[in-house]
Amino acid sequence: MRTGSAEPAPRRRRGRPGYDQSAILRAAVELFNRKGYDATSMGDLAKELGLTKPAIYHHVTSKEQLLGQALDDALDELTAVVTEASRERAGATAHGRLREVVRRSVEVLVAHQPSVTLLLRVRGNSDVELAALERRRWLDDRLAGLVADAVAEGALRDDVPPALVSRLLFGMVNSLVEWYRPDGAHDPATVADAITAIAFDGLARHET
Amino acid sequence: MRTGSAEPAPRRRRGRPGYDQSAILRAAVELFNRKGYDATSMGDLAKELGLTKPAIYHHVTSKEQLLGQALDDALDELTAVVTEASRERAGATAHGRLREVVRRSVEVLVAHQPSVTLLLRVRGNSDVELAALERRRWLDDRLAGLVADAVAEGALRDDVPPALVSRLLFGMVNSLVEWYRPDGAHDPATVADAITAIAFDGLARHET
Repeated sequence: MRTGSAEPAPRRRRGRPGYDQSAILRAAVELFNRKGYDATSMGDLAKELGLTKPAIYHHVTSKEQLLGQALDDALDELTAVVTEASRERAGATAHGRLREVVRRSVEVLVAHQPSVTLLLRVRGNSDVELAALERRRWLDDRLAGLVADAVAEGALRDDVPPALVSRLLFGMVNSLVEWYRPDGAHDPATVADAITAIAFDGLARHET
Repeated sequence: MRTGSAEPAPRRRRGRPGYDQSAILRAAVELFNRKGYDATSMGDLAKELGLTKPAIYHHVTSKEQLLGQALDDALDELTAVVTEASRERAGATAHGRLREVVRRSVEVLVAHQPSVTLLLRVRGNSDVELAALERRRWLDDRLAGLVADAVAEGALRDDVPPALVSRLLFGMVNSLVEWYRPDGAHDPATVADAITAIAFDGLARHET
């Protein structure tokens, strides 16, 4: 259920030295995030890279191919994290797996911030975008199921609907892409600690 | 420090019956959110409304004017909520005012979802957008200050940096615009209760 075309970018290398697909993909994602995907043309991308349009088309077949690759990059990482967390296994409670998926999601969002940013802004304006939304829905369903399991095992409060908890918890995680700066005050571990502290234990000061 | 031009839309009514500025503004915001602002032309908007381009320009001077009005709509509401919450007053702790600003922000996001959605996607590609980002920063600073005050008065835990708490708390609130549906399962009060329950008390089940 991949949204884009076949090969991952780094393996295919052809064309003039200094530009490979992965460098073009990075520049494209940056431009899509800055100007908006629909407003960005292959001409804009060529200009950004200092290439001619034919030179770009030597490396990639279409703008949509670049979008699909970027969305797959984000979705493949998130899918791996969520699949692992959804797997029931000895010694791992649903609560423990939920905390772990929050932590690992933060790591993915930080390590793949440009492509996850693009993913979170997808509105479904093309087949590639609709396929990405379909994969996002699968992730959301798994996460809601994991929250429900953690409630059922008695670890989490049961007075907030699990589907709403899942939306809000991962809404908080996803907000990272809007404000996180790799060179800013907080490293990923601090952010992950803060999210789990807030979400699971709450902000209220507890007497200890 | 308004980002757009003068008058709020509903008061100015002119041109052919059946279309006033506020109807055009609503359609424009919906289109900007669906296609992206940069990818939307005044021709697209005219087509959406079944009007000619000259008929649109009879009502509004530019696409940027529509953007400015929509952003002001969102920002004026949020500024009113945050200004009220920032006002120190007898009998209202910073903690109480923070809980209140979360609740009222949810109400604004639900009541003005299209214009807040547009606001949260602004990237600073024009003077109007930069002015809106400036106003957003003012709001963020006030909210971070309020969190810091609530920590200082001893109501909130002090082991998570207040600036990070503020980002995450309002990241959770802002995520609403991405998934909230007015005809969906949850009314605004339920959502506001869920956010305050999660953020202040946490998801972990407490023995009572």
